[in-house]
Amino acid sequence: MTDFRPVLFILGLFLSALAVAMMVPALVDAAIGHDDWRVFALSGAATLFVGVALATGFRGDAMRLDLRQGFVLTAATWIVLSAFSALPFVFSDITLSYVDAYFEAVSGLTTTGATVLVGLESMPPGILLWRSILQFIGGAGIIVMAIAVLPFLRVGGMQLFRAESSEKSDKVLPRLSSVAAATVAVYVGLTALCAILYGVAGMSGFDAVTHAMTTVSTAGFANYDSSFAWFQNPAIEWIAILFMLIGGCPMVVFILLARGHFRPLWSDSQIRAFLAIVLLASLAMTLWLHATRDVEFGIALRLALFNVTSVTTTTGYASADYGTWGGFAMVGFVLLMCVGGCTGSTTGAIKVFRLQILARLIGAQLRRQMQPHGVFPMHYMGQHVHDDVQASVMAFFAVYIVSLASLTLVLAALGYDLVTAFSGAASILSNHGPGLGDIIGPSGNFQSLSDAAKWVLCFGMFLGRLEIFTLLMLFSVRLWRG
Amino acid sequence: MTDFRPVLFILGLFLSALAVAMMVPALVDAAIGHDDWRVFALSGAATLFVGVALATGFRGDAMRLDLRQGFVLTAATWIVLSAFSALPFVFSDITLSYVDAYFEAVSGLTTTGATVLVGLESMPPGILLWRSILQFIGGAGIIVMAIAVLPFLRVGGMQLFRAESSEKSDKVLPRLSSVAAATVAVYVGLTALCAILYGVAGMSGFDAVTHAMTTVSTAGFANYDSSFAWFQNPAIEWIAILFMLIGGCPMVVFILLARGHFRPLWSDSQIRAFLAIVLLASLAMTLWLHATRDVEFGIALRLALFNVTSVTTTTGYASADYGTWGGFAMVGFVLLMCVGGCTGSTTGAIKVFRLQILARLIGAQLRRQMQPHGVFPMHYMGQHVHDDVQASVMAFFAVYIVSLASLTLVLAALGYDLVTAFSGAASILSNHGPGLGDIIGPSGNFQSLSDAAKWVLCFGMFLGRLEIFTLLMLFSVRLWRG
Repeated sequence: MTDFRPVLFILGLFLSALAVAMMVPALVDAAIGHDDWRVFALSGAATLFVGVALATGFRGDAMRLDLRQGFVLTAATWIVLSAFSALPFVFSDITLSYVDAYFEAVSGLTTTGATVLVGLESMPPGILLWRSILQFIGGAGIIVMAIAVLPFLRVGGMQLFRAESSEKSDKVLPRLSSVAAATVAVYVGLTALCAILYGVAGMSGFDAVTHAMTTVSTAGFANYDSSFAWFQNPAIEWIAILFMLIGGCPMVVFILLARGHFRPLWSDSQIRAFLAIVLLASLAMTLWLHATRDVEFGIALRLALFNVTSVTTTTGYASADYGTWGGFAMVGFVLLMCVGGCTGSTTGAIKVFRLQILARLIGAQLRRQMQPHGVFPMHYMGQHVHDDVQASVMAFFAVYIVSLASLTLVLAALGYDLVTAFSGAASILSNHGPGLGDIIGPSGNFQSLSDAAKWVLCFGMFLGRLEIFTLLMLFSVRLWRG
Repeated sequence: MTDFRPVLFILGLFLSALAVAMMVPALVDAAIGHDDWRVFALSGAATLFVGVALATGFRGDAMRLDLRQGFVLTAATWIVLSAFSALPFVFSDITLSYVDAYFEAVSGLTTTGATVLVGLESMPPGILLWRSILQFIGGAGIIVMAIAVLPFLRVGGMQLFRAESSEKSDKVLPRLSSVAAATVAVYVGLTALCAILYGVAGMSGFDAVTHAMTTVSTAGFANYDSSFAWFQNPAIEWIAILFMLIGGCPMVVFILLARGHFRPLWSDSQIRAFLAIVLLASLAMTLWLHATRDVEFGIALRLALFNVTSVTTTTGYASADYGTWGGFAMVGFVLLMCVGGCTGSTTGAIKVFRLQILARLIGAQLRRQMQPHGVFPMHYMGQHVHDDVQASVMAFFAVYIVSLASLTLVLAALGYDLVTAFSGAASILSNHGPGLGDIIGPSGNFQSLSDAAKWVLCFGMFLGRLEIFTLLMLFSVRLWRG
């Protein structure tokens, strides 16, 4: 029988940290004299109580988690933290039902950015701040998970990104911790820089800080129902484009950049492919808008770049209602949703490195058909890609498509039309946010969906965020058996 | 430099055979005194002339084709035969443009069943017969290709179905030829049986023969715009269901059945999975129709079974306008289109054995995550599945999804909405036929599409029929180099 005490211990620590984070909106609300400070204080106290109880009750040696414990902890962290993050939404004046509150919390922590709130303009500042903080924390969590956890759980080919010396050294965790800490520091620094630039470009201090927190984390909550279209400010849009692109790159690369090494930014084939996809898709979308929607070229370029970047990085901002751009745009956006950014970023979806490996697999197949007995070793960024990594990537792709199809089918069975069901499933699974169609398109939101649909979408957001296999493992008999 | 003379020689033989096939509608038209007999005689003469010229001009040793020649011949056969099969449509009274005629011919030979003809009820009998003959010939071609060609070209994991003794024996071709001949004999026998039953159930002799030819070949051309809904005859529908299911099974199995071996029908895991998919999907669709469309259970069951079977076997008949059945039905039908039937049948799409191997891959991945250093050999129907077969299947799945996405994007760029573009791409790539939506749904047809869209869809039909990789090879530098 596996010992799950260390899992509960670490969960307790995480919950305690979450409680501390709730103090931020509590203080802000108190400072401006908004009554919601009680809501956050109360939620924080409840969360802290449970957190401390778990941490003290199950104290033990948590430094040696085995695979079983690793899977359970990783999945449980997102599910349980979301449950407590939802408390302020329930207790606040906006009085959401628990499913709505949980949906909003999951959408926040997983950096999805789909919202059930309508009339964001008139929401209490504490609530808006809490939404941004959830995405900011979630983003940090995703980066740490990508660097320190998933490569060891061998999820979806992520073992390719295992730190090189990790298998030899006996000091794996300290070394990883320092990389993770440095990466999170870079993440915080970029967010601060983004906030400053937003402020300079004309955002209020509050908007600048909250939107910076949801930009670099490629998360997508905005303080306005119309998202970035509210600002009508090209400078702000260009800053958002830049920082969404930054958020789509592996965060580790910016540590090297901070140390003065610029080469990795160009020599990293994943980053090159990612930027090429965004640029080519933006160019195609620009021409489409210019040709079929009579939009002036310069404006079309900005519109295309902003929304293509937002979709490809699975951020979820909109600078226009791109749901009205016609069939090519709709198909293009659904496909880009499934692409995502680089591994080691906060983006969701399949991600560029997996698509690169798939392309190499297809190429190898064409070669093998010509030379049936040839051997074609695969390389990626100077590394040999072992067979088990290839199999992991392929299994991930297959399970991604199956998940997408299943989510679509369930949403359709709940009564939604093909476009809503398919785009909603694609958007939620990729942790992007808005879908297409009248209901959940960029000008709509998730409020009107049934409770059943919301629970299904919460599951979909976890599925995407946990790279599917981490969550699937919980349903595997093997995990629980001796 | 590869010698393509044997390719041209065999093409010549195939064209000569096609010319002979054109004599059938010529004779029928002549017998009933319809002027179109001249059209078929003329088309046949032209085809025969080219065929004989090629066969005599490039006569040589065709029994030893290498891989290069194999790929070129396989792809060229479908493309060139379609070009000549289109002639009667051009010359006939119905005077189609060449692109329309080519579309109809490709849709016939690839057993897709999408049509550009409107008012089938008033079409000359020769034309209707020619459409059926094309699908009948196409179906036989697909079976022979699946048994004798694709396993040797190692396309998409088909090497799994290589006849066991083939690598040892030096008499591969004769042995294969006899298997192929026996299989085609079974195919012809089943078609005859189907025609007799259709006749008994109330079809006219002409309808019985033509529809039998498009049923067992899971092809889908009907003699009426409203397809099988025209008959309003449950017995005919049940016969169609039975023979579409038969058409979805590996034809080889019926050789064994004819010899009195019934076990393979139940012990073949591919057949079991195929039937399970059809039955489960039909049951779900029945419940959906009963619950949301107020259809009586018995009628709902027949409607669901007929249309689910038609879609899953990529036949393309419709017994109702299932485009009005709502979101769940639409999503379900698009997914079923991508499933297809068994390998060695005339169905298109991904096919059941590949989905089974993908499911095993996902299972192996879950196991490997629990035991990183474990070895998990894969088995399928008692055979060990080698790594290169797994890689072929995975590459096929990936390239299928990429093809589906690309076709959808191109159709959307040509101005079609998301539902038309996506369902059209899925339907055409799987060689199914009708799509969804107002334009190409079961109550519409492909007539109104632009010429550009029709050429794209012709390419899509070849892509699907040639299991994608066979056609992709033609674009590979490697094929033409040295």
